[in-house]
Amino acid sequence: MSRSIEGLIFDLDGTVYLGNAALPGAVEGIAALRQQGKHVLFVSNKPLEPRDTYAKKLANLGIDATPDDVITSAYVLGYHLAQTEPHLNLYVVGEENLLHELRGHGLQIVNEFMEQDPMDVIRTNGVDAVVVAFDRTLSYRKLNTAYQALQTGARFFATNADKACPMPGGAIPDAGGTIAALEHMTGRKVELLAGKPSNLITQVALQK
Amino acid sequence: MSRSIEGLIFDLDGTVYLGNAALPGAVEGIAALRQQGKHVLFVSNKPLEPRDTYAKKLANLGIDATPDDVITSAYVLGYHLAQTEPHLNLYVVGEENLLHELRGHGLQIVNEFMEQDPMDVIRTNGVDAVVVAFDRTLSYRKLNTAYQALQTGARFFATNADKACPMPGGAIPDAGGTIAALEHMTGRKVELLAGKPSNLITQVALQK
Repeated sequence: MSRSIEGLIFDLDGTVYLGNAALPGAVEGIAALRQQGKHVLFVSNKPLEPRDTYAKKLANLGIDATPDDVITSAYVLGYHLAQTEPHLNLYVVGEENLLHELRGHGLQIVNEFMEQDPMDVIRTNGVDAVVVAFDRTLSYRKLNTAYQALQTGARFFATNADKACPMPGGAIPDAGGTIAALEHMTGRKVELLAGKPSNLITQVALQK
Repeated sequence: MSRSIEGLIFDLDGTVYLGNAALPGAVEGIAALRQQGKHVLFVSNKPLEPRDTYAKKLANLGIDATPDDVITSAYVLGYHLAQTEPHLNLYVVGEENLLHELRGHGLQIVNEFMEQDPMDVIRTNGVDAVVVAFDRTLSYRKLNTAYQALQTGARFFATNADKACPMPGGAIPDAGGTIAALEHMTGRKVELLAGKPSNLITQVALQK
């Protein structure tokens, strides 16, 4: 391998492991690269787990990794917004890990407007931006809230735009469907995508 | 008005009434048409209410109407499927009124697979077709179930494809967003649309 390559970025699911098993050659290959002095990072488009969960999973497979070696779409979005737009109030269509990650970067998340009827026009006062993510707790209330905020001018961000997430026995709906629904209903387009294929995830990796 | 016109079809929301008030001239205009011997029908793309609810609402506004004078997208879909595909097992992303309407046409609706985890790949054995409708009880479980059924070859029907439904103070997400999400994720297209702008609703009206 060329000496000019200082580091490598590996995708996790389907590249380093599949389910809970390392893929053939992955453990040995990464060890060999590190012996050559290469810097190895791991990326995942999934915003569902914290970075230390991935680091522990890698360690269990025989690949040393710290949370700092792992980059997720949730981390990239939090890192980027904290640098560029730290004062936006975010409404998040996402799971608990993403909320935790964004708050960890000092970002503000507005409440869920639970006092309003989800079947009415929800008043999203105070929301500056909508964040759409892989969310297995998606509901009409969340879709309606995001829709109303986008209709009244909120900015439109997403962690990732995958159509479906591979799972044992198939795949389940990912953020791409929610984004498509909101884009179709509002005529808006996502303006910032943190995960692959956006180059934001690469930019953040290169700063490591 | 030309004598060759035997009947007229009126849209309801925003044409005959807005909210709970008749629009100016609607009551008198419809009465005049009927005095001329014209057959008047009322249509709504909304699959949320039974036809007799609309008939009662019209009567309260001073417009005589029976349930037979009213055509909804739910009625059109039920009527059409009962004539053409009466033996399909339907999985319905929709509200209670739609289930009731479809069952009233003798159609079979499969259960919600509640014993399966909505965060896993849901096995939709026995589903022949997915019906997508305006559904203010949309959930990740429903989206995942419809996705899995479509991925394994189920047919793809919808009551209506409106992006949003007008409401006091704005609009709320309608079936169009759910259709866009499922079309985007599966690469499939809705093959049968009951409501406007499909001509199926007109065909059913002309049989009246």
